[in-house]
Amino acid sequence: MGIKAFAPASIGNVGVGFDIMGLCLERPGDEVIARTSETPGLRITKITGHGGRLSSDIDKNTAGVAARSLLEHLGESGRGIELEIHKKMPFGSGLGSSAASAVAAVVAVSELLRTGLSKRELLHFACLGEQVASGSYHADNVAPSLIGGIVLIRDSATLDVHRLHVPKGLYVVVVYPKVEILTKEARAILKPDVTLKQYVSQSANVGGFIVGLYNSDIALIGRSLRDDIIEPQRAALIPGFYDVKSAALSCEGVLGCSISGSGPSVFALCANSLAAESAGLAMQQAFAGHKVESDIFLSPINQEGATIC
Amino acid sequence: MGIKAFAPASIGNVGVGFDIMGLCLERPGDEVIARTSETPGLRITKITGHGGRLSSDIDKNTAGVAARSLLEHLGESGRGIELEIHKKMPFGSGLGSSAASAVAAVVAVSELLRTGLSKRELLHFACLGEQVASGSYHADNVAPSLIGGIVLIRDSATLDVHRLHVPKGLYVVVVYPKVEILTKEARAILKPDVTLKQYVSQSANVGGFIVGLYNSDIALIGRSLRDDIIEPQRAALIPGFYDVKSAALSCEGVLGCSISGSGPSVFALCANSLAAESAGLAMQQAFAGHKVESDIFLSPINQEGATIC
Repeated sequence: MGIKAFAPASIGNVGVGFDIMGLCLERPGDEVIARTSETPGLRITKITGHGGRLSSDIDKNTAGVAARSLLEHLGESGRGIELEIHKKMPFGSGLGSSAASAVAAVVAVSELLRTGLSKRELLHFACLGEQVASGSYHADNVAPSLIGGIVLIRDSATLDVHRLHVPKGLYVVVVYPKVEILTKEARAILKPDVTLKQYVSQSANVGGFIVGLYNSDIALIGRSLRDDIIEPQRAALIPGFYDVKSAALSCEGVLGCSISGSGPSVFALCANSLAAESAGLAMQQAFAGHKVESDIFLSPINQEGATIC
Repeated sequence: MGIKAFAPASIGNVGVGFDIMGLCLERPGDEVIARTSETPGLRITKITGHGGRLSSDIDKNTAGVAARSLLEHLGESGRGIELEIHKKMPFGSGLGSSAASAVAAVVAVSELLRTGLSKRELLHFACLGEQVASGSYHADNVAPSLIGGIVLIRDSATLDVHRLHVPKGLYVVVVYPKVEILTKEARAILKPDVTLKQYVSQSANVGGFIVGLYNSDIALIGRSLRDDIIEPQRAALIPGFYDVKSAALSCEGVLGCSISGSGPSVFALCANSLAAESAGLAMQQAFAGHKVESDIFLSPINQEGATIC
């Protein structure tokens, strides 16, 4: 017997909320198939789409660690389970690739064993998996990939996460330039301090963004969707970033544009799908002007999160 | 002919949102009476309740500057108008005393001249008055005193202010210890930087507080109503602050407790009026233990703001 789960990509930070927000896309995403086996223990039997870069050692694989943590919690460590991991999104892209694999693994295993656990209850195990890749226990990609929507992570340690109201029609475009940034490196370049003034204005933008979402105030979302702290420090890691951003913002209906997670993908939040399409092409063209190839992903806000498929 | 306006006290920062939030109380507050006069020009004819500490020179008085700015905007600088200012709240208390006078003045003058201007349109002139007292153009006391509610000030310069949804039943107690702190001094002691980690957790609390308000999630409001950046720096200015805070938090139904504005008043946000009453007495007793006399003000969230009375 086998179960296939799909877990979508996500946009960590959403520009305005460094380390405290994430947004769920409909595509791309990863698939994990879990099957019962007569051989005791958890094994990874197949990994596709990873270009030889993922280990099938359970301890070193986000999906493996996530699934094993769940099995340990259930007292089912000895259960014979095989995982197949199908990576269908780029690595080191800033789209939450490792989170998606961890999420798909726990969702598939939970369904296979008919645990009846809610997504909220699965969150912890997916975060344990994500920790293998990122080095820290945090939910800003895992939570949106699992539960969908735009998520505020008030506190990762206690998984105090909240889905925010999302106005109808919002659409996202992500443009992934084919250069690689490792999350660990992107964190290492950040200054350890911010000025009090930056803190005040950025926290005001966090507030304005959330109020804009709840009040469906599209203009307020647009004014608030900015990152004056992290983006300027990371922009240099992305060839042509400011040209790409300008290209996006010059399109009608684009509310804001910033770095997805720790990059290099750049996203634009848009008032509708048409704006997202225009912005995507403009952004791709701007990258091309810097001799960088890129892929475009268009998506509404995914309100469902990970699914059994 | 005369018009009397009342403008209420307010809690700047609301603990969690330094420089970006304010909350409107029902009492105390200031009254300003505006009367037409046959003598051209604006004059302050009477000030009560100020202990000789306010100037009746228009240029040096928050109510005077606010009213004059409005009259200039209307092209009515020559109009004969007399102002009476009745201070009914303590100075330098952290309750937005100067903002209340400025707000009451513009509301009274606007009504007297039947300008038809909305409160939103009056906000700018009240901020100009407040600027005389505080040295900067900011709306975190003026906006809640004028429009009521719990207000997010996304940007003072453009007066991008937003009333937040407020769950039913929330109640506030403010305890004013009879020591004085000047806003300018309270600002001067603040360190110019915060750590990135502090920024992340405090901005998460701003987000959590707003989501808690919109979702009427009382527990989330309680977890989020904290200030790990400013409060520790200012606590030493308030005798016995941590004892007062502990006393408040030990009462059932108290969601959070912090410094009102730049102090010395300490407020507690409560789930209901009973909790606020208990907390007020406990806080007063804690101040007494430090040989500090104090006054208690109990109030629901004032959703109306300044009024003609």
